[in-house]
Amino acid sequence: MNAAAARGASSPTSFQVRLDDGLTLECGAHIAPLDIAYCAYGTLSPARDNVILVCHALTGDQYVAETHPVTGKPGWWSRAVGPGCAIDTDRFFVLCVNVLGGCMGSSGPRTLRDTGEPWGTDFPPITIRDMVFAQAKLLDHLGIDRLFAAIGGSMGGMQVLQWVASFPERVGAAMPIATAPFHSAQNIAFNEVSRQAICGDPDWCGGRYWAHGTIPAKGLAVARMMAHITYLSEEALTQKFGRRTRRDAVPSHEAVASGNSLFGEIFEVESYLRHQGSSFVRRFDANAYLTITRALDYFDLSADYDGDLSAPFRGCKTRFCIISFTSDWLFPTSQSRLLARALNRAGVNVSFVEIESDRGHDAFLLEEPDLDRTMRGFINGAAEHAGLANRPQEVGHAS
Amino acid sequence: MNAAAARGASSPTSFQVRLDDGLTLECGAHIAPLDIAYCAYGTLSPARDNVILVCHALTGDQYVAETHPVTGKPGWWSRAVGPGCAIDTDRFFVLCVNVLGGCMGSSGPRTLRDTGEPWGTDFPPITIRDMVFAQAKLLDHLGIDRLFAAIGGSMGGMQVLQWVASFPERVGAAMPIATAPFHSAQNIAFNEVSRQAICGDPDWCGGRYWAHGTIPAKGLAVARMMAHITYLSEEALTQKFGRRTRRDAVPSHEAVASGNSLFGEIFEVESYLRHQGSSFVRRFDANAYLTITRALDYFDLSADYDGDLSAPFRGCKTRFCIISFTSDWLFPTSQSRLLARALNRAGVNVSFVEIESDRGHDAFLLEEPDLDRTMRGFINGAAEHAGLANRPQEVGHAS
Repeated sequence: MNAAAARGASSPTSFQVRLDDGLTLECGAHIAPLDIAYCAYGTLSPARDNVILVCHALTGDQYVAETHPVTGKPGWWSRAVGPGCAIDTDRFFVLCVNVLGGCMGSSGPRTLRDTGEPWGTDFPPITIRDMVFAQAKLLDHLGIDRLFAAIGGSMGGMQVLQWVASFPERVGAAMPIATAPFHSAQNIAFNEVSRQAICGDPDWCGGRYWAHGTIPAKGLAVARMMAHITYLSEEALTQKFGRRTRRDAVPSHEAVASGNSLFGEIFEVESYLRHQGSSFVRRFDANAYLTITRALDYFDLSADYDGDLSAPFRGCKTRFCIISFTSDWLFPTSQSRLLARALNRAGVNVSFVEIESDRGHDAFLLEEPDLDRTMRGFINGAAEHAGLANRPQEVGHAS
Repeated sequence: MNAAAARGASSPTSFQVRLDDGLTLECGAHIAPLDIAYCAYGTLSPARDNVILVCHALTGDQYVAETHPVTGKPGWWSRAVGPGCAIDTDRFFVLCVNVLGGCMGSSGPRTLRDTGEPWGTDFPPITIRDMVFAQAKLLDHLGIDRLFAAIGGSMGGMQVLQWVASFPERVGAAMPIATAPFHSAQNIAFNEVSRQAICGDPDWCGGRYWAHGTIPAKGLAVARMMAHITYLSEEALTQKFGRRTRRDAVPSHEAVASGNSLFGEIFEVESYLRHQGSSFVRRFDANAYLTITRALDYFDLSADYDGDLSAPFRGCKTRFCIISFTSDWLFPTSQSRLLARALNRAGVNVSFVEIESDRGHDAFLLEEPDLDRTMRGFINGAAEHAGLANRPQEVGHAS
């Protein structure tokens, strides 16, 4: 890759590297080679001091600011990452890495082993820390010592927290959004239902669906539909759909039994969820979903410190901005507040913004002017503090 | 049935009647004969003025105050219904009816038709109003003109509301608990995921599983697991399980891959949910679950009145006590408040109690002293107002 990589639509922005020495995981297993797929935007400064790592959520991937190669849809955070955006690619060199365990090019259950078969459920259990260590390996490979900032929402926010906990000297600023320092019992419970839905689908074939030419489409769709409800607030669902009905191409069995208008229709929210489920299975790997939901469930930042959430942050110079949303019930403000208090106790420079929004957990992905303003303000403040130039000169980066 | 039915453990309390003239449903279909299964406790007063109808929730049934014939567990509300309880069977004649569409003896998808086969998915779509009309048919059959009170939580509360809306002169007092005057978009969404899980299970066999000797156990278990999460609050799950882990008889696939203690265990909340799922499928019919969740989704009391929720209650003399719980996010207080305001606008005698509880929607089934006190106070007040004798004399009731 050269400097041109980050300029204009015609330059490549999507990369995959293979690191032969691999990675030893928290569970003790060693994965080699280690594949890491990522996207890169903007220009790396000569001082290599303008790198922003954007960490994606459970079902996100590295295509943060460009058309997705499978769905054809815009990047999942193209409103936040780009020239002139809050995460300004005219100023920053932005990296987004497909997480370890994912299914868009980084090592995961779909990756082929020496046997010519995918890892499948033999892929070792991974943790958020493993994801972060894989990203750190990529930075080493690219010759990037230090992140100007790490930013991410939901599971991306967990990676941000783990980055600072594992490599405090390598992260200048951290913005964990709509996240938590541990996965709650309720969230573990929802994930477990997802896994039961997937593994209960006979087309999962004990995890070896690739060998049978099937995918556990129904189970994965159910998992996605349920998860999708948890990403929205009750208000958002009410505003968006309420109790409106529509005729559907696939009528419910009641519709067949009755001519009554209500019984002949389905609710719009049902139609929406069905669409969410069926489009998801076309782009996501079921075993990756199992692997990543487990990583989420394992996440408990204080577990290695006898339950002291302040401990991993003591003496750390990273500037923090924590963001939560009032209507997010999956990662409620109370969990961000726990984190903010722990950082305060550790003497860390932290600001905490609870944004008024009725859009639930997904608010971090949507047009939220307060989020935009908060991100811009925090990033600009951190840049000023770091004495960062307004625009980087061009320089290649090793790849 | 005679008067002895209601006395002592040795007397029969469980009944089934067959009403040959059947019932015309809201969808236009006519079901005949109509089977109604119910339990009865206590003694009907000579004036037949001491009847309390207890309405059950989605997966409840008529076994409100006695050992369940399938599970062997205590009645689902045995702490509220019994001698000396808030719903005092020494004083009141208590009826609990398996809802139309259910699977414990009332007409539903599991009922055999003339063909010798169950209705299955040919069972017509039903509504909460249909459930109430079936109960009214039973009261007619038993020679009971008027309910002293109708009481129920969740879907049971919807039936209570529908009772007053449809038969205001037949209900003296109404206690809708942890319920709402319409099913919200979020609740419809969760129900739709349940239905997709059930219908996506190949053992559902297009609804004709009985003909294949199967049941859609995995799909129904997933539906139940998800629903169970919605019955509890985040606090309740945290207090009950937190992030505690345990070894499980059926290890996760990660457990096989790793010797690490965390990876070799599952979270207690997972184990609990799996148990909830697997025990549910032994007692509940999948097609009944589909039918009843649809009935819940259709429920919108104001829909027949141009959206005016006060309209069905105008001029009604029924005394209301509405109860909600602070941590119930499935039927939040805001929905009870809407109802209370509508009743106020209609000039109805209504009190509204929001009970502080961290146990979520299921609080109405649990030991909640404030609920107990509120129920006792309301029932005694209503009895005094009605001039009801403290203890009924014995009298048989026709059956």
